[in-house]
Amino acid sequence: MQNFNFHNPTHIIFGKDRLSELNKLVPQNAKVLIAFGGGSIKKFGTFDKVVDALKDREIIEFGGIEPNPQFNTLMKAVNVVKNEKIDFILAVGGGSVIDGVKFIVMAAKYDGNDPERIFLKGAASTGVKEVVSYGTVLTLPATGTEMNANSVISYKTGKYPFSTPLVYPIFSILDPTLTHSLPKKQVANGVVDAFVHVMEQYMTYPVDGRFQDRTAEGILTSLIEIGKKTIDEPEDYDARANLVWCATMALNGVIGSGVPQDWATHQLGHEITAFYGVDHAQSLAVILPTMMDVRREQKKDKLIQYADRVWNISEGTTDEIIDKVIAQTREFFESLNVKTRLSDYGIPANGIDQMVKGLEEKGSTSISERGDLTLDISRKIFEMSL
Amino acid sequence: MQNFNFHNPTHIIFGKDRLSELNKLVPQNAKVLIAFGGGSIKKFGTFDKVVDALKDREIIEFGGIEPNPQFNTLMKAVNVVKNEKIDFILAVGGGSVIDGVKFIVMAAKYDGNDPERIFLKGAASTGVKEVVSYGTVLTLPATGTEMNANSVISYKTGKYPFSTPLVYPIFSILDPTLTHSLPKKQVANGVVDAFVHVMEQYMTYPVDGRFQDRTAEGILTSLIEIGKKTIDEPEDYDARANLVWCATMALNGVIGSGVPQDWATHQLGHEITAFYGVDHAQSLAVILPTMMDVRREQKKDKLIQYADRVWNISEGTTDEIIDKVIAQTREFFESLNVKTRLSDYGIPANGIDQMVKGLEEKGSTSISERGDLTLDISRKIFEMSL
Repeated sequence: MQNFNFHNPTHIIFGKDRLSELNKLVPQNAKVLIAFGGGSIKKFGTFDKVVDALKDREIIEFGGIEPNPQFNTLMKAVNVVKNEKIDFILAVGGGSVIDGVKFIVMAAKYDGNDPERIFLKGAASTGVKEVVSYGTVLTLPATGTEMNANSVISYKTGKYPFSTPLVYPIFSILDPTLTHSLPKKQVANGVVDAFVHVMEQYMTYPVDGRFQDRTAEGILTSLIEIGKKTIDEPEDYDARANLVWCATMALNGVIGSGVPQDWATHQLGHEITAFYGVDHAQSLAVILPTMMDVRREQKKDKLIQYADRVWNISEGTTDEIIDKVIAQTREFFESLNVKTRLSDYGIPANGIDQMVKGLEEKGSTSISERGDLTLDISRKIFEMSL
Repeated sequence: MQNFNFHNPTHIIFGKDRLSELNKLVPQNAKVLIAFGGGSIKKFGTFDKVVDALKDREIIEFGGIEPNPQFNTLMKAVNVVKNEKIDFILAVGGGSVIDGVKFIVMAAKYDGNDPERIFLKGAASTGVKEVVSYGTVLTLPATGTEMNANSVISYKTGKYPFSTPLVYPIFSILDPTLTHSLPKKQVANGVVDAFVHVMEQYMTYPVDGRFQDRTAEGILTSLIEIGKKTIDEPEDYDARANLVWCATMALNGVIGSGVPQDWATHQLGHEITAFYGVDHAQSLAVILPTMMDVRREQKKDKLIQYADRVWNISEGTTDEIIDKVIAQTREFFESLNVKTRLSDYGIPANGIDQMVKGLEEKGSTSISERGDLTLDISRKIFEMSL
């Protein structure tokens, strides 16, 4: 096992009918900004419940944070926070709203005129020591951002991650019933996103991290079991509760501590989203199967372990087992109606050049857990994903 | 899944050669009390390393915290903390030292003349809002107290638990190499203790908590795999690292959130320890197999799941499967040289009366996850454990 630090201070409030606890969780005299996305939280009543729970606190709304939250949109919120002297932000939404708020709480405390530095040069480079306090109400299980210190911001034609312990949410309310009204497509994306988050921390090389491996395998198995059910039967509380909790545990540090990680699938996927607007999870569903195929030699031991423990596949030669488990994984994504080929999204072969160039511009020229995934290999993965 | 709150703010520093980081972790100008047990930390050099890492901070020692830490011993430390105006306590040791320090940091901030109220009437009854800051250096993997808010204090002839979010350690350093010098018996006890902690949160009734169940099963499987190895080969880093991390994850809230829990094995075990001085883990190894036997009807579904997923036992009638898996569990404990019968520890049949009375005095008359474990059933469990 590798050395590690683990420190996750976010307070999780999980279960049915927990919104009323906002009154205890948000400071009594706070002036609150409620940040949200496209307005579905108003349509389905979540917004009203949140406002009720906040009692007589002064509230300002900031809606319109889009999927893959845009720097320019978020900067408008930063101005509101500064001008209105906001004390507390409540992010009500899915991964994009919460990721966006992570940027907002940092940028609102940064005095320089280049807030894009937060994700271009790293949060530490800003010198910011304290952010605006915030909590979240999660309405879309997927990214795990409700219990971690990570964010991805869209800027010009790129998607840029940043991470700092400063932006752990103080609390996150995870009420699975708030997600019942989600479109099937978003739920399917959530299942795939959580699945691939686990794979990025698991599909590397063995370091005898038994707790980490078995917990990762447990989440993968659970997602396979409940994935289709929770899409088809959105009102089934237990299936949805399992999705919500698995998605959070998939990326809060628990399974990734003490083991190598490989975020190459995300890095290639981000280019697909940046250039073609494909949903984040869809981009991951395209890249992951090919990634396992192309990297079968480097990831052999874990691929065999994954085949055996998650899919119960142990018959055949090493290559046969790996072929089978890649096919199973692809089939799982397809069974959720998440397509796994670039061509399914209308992306042509001649679009690959610009995506490879996008990787190059971000310095992603030797990525993966071994640092041996070159631009040539990335190109090959895009090509084999057509 | 049941509703739950999860909030665990302890910072874990895990791995080889981490003690030097104490200099960053402990406040610069703190006057530090180093609390420890019987002195093995001095014999094996850990104490010196800790003192080195603390640089020129003023240090006071408090040794002699015994296994099953005694109220009277701890009150001496409370007086030192008050008289010497200690700012920070460093608990260096195993579960007893850390449990003891949890009491010390509370009691040092309590002005009343009945500090035993902390565990007799509950921490909340003291009105204490803030405790003395403390961190830990773990030298014995077992109890999980290094990353939770629980403590058990020995007082007169009883063992009394208390719990409050105030007493989460600020940090815990988990360096597996610090545990290499432990006696085999203590390591075996640690394996059993961690195993039973998982069982108390798992062996109840199903509530479709998939992450929780599979993570619990993963810890149990890992402990079975590495238990004997880490006792026989104390210098094997990976086996010991897995024990340390599994023991922490067994009782930090991760597997117990959202599922029923049954601490009856601990409650009966505490009586054995209180009256006969049997090690805590030994008492659990005695009670658990009988508990599963006597409660086979109430715990049927989870016993079958445990048999299948942890021990790969699925052939036979329900009772046959349960018989087999209880035998396997007992055999596992015995394979670690932890005996599983009261008679192995010289406890006679006529000692049972006082242990049942001990339960009665603590109000433990209808315990377990269903509240249906009466004193009569507890008596039967003691009798069948002879």
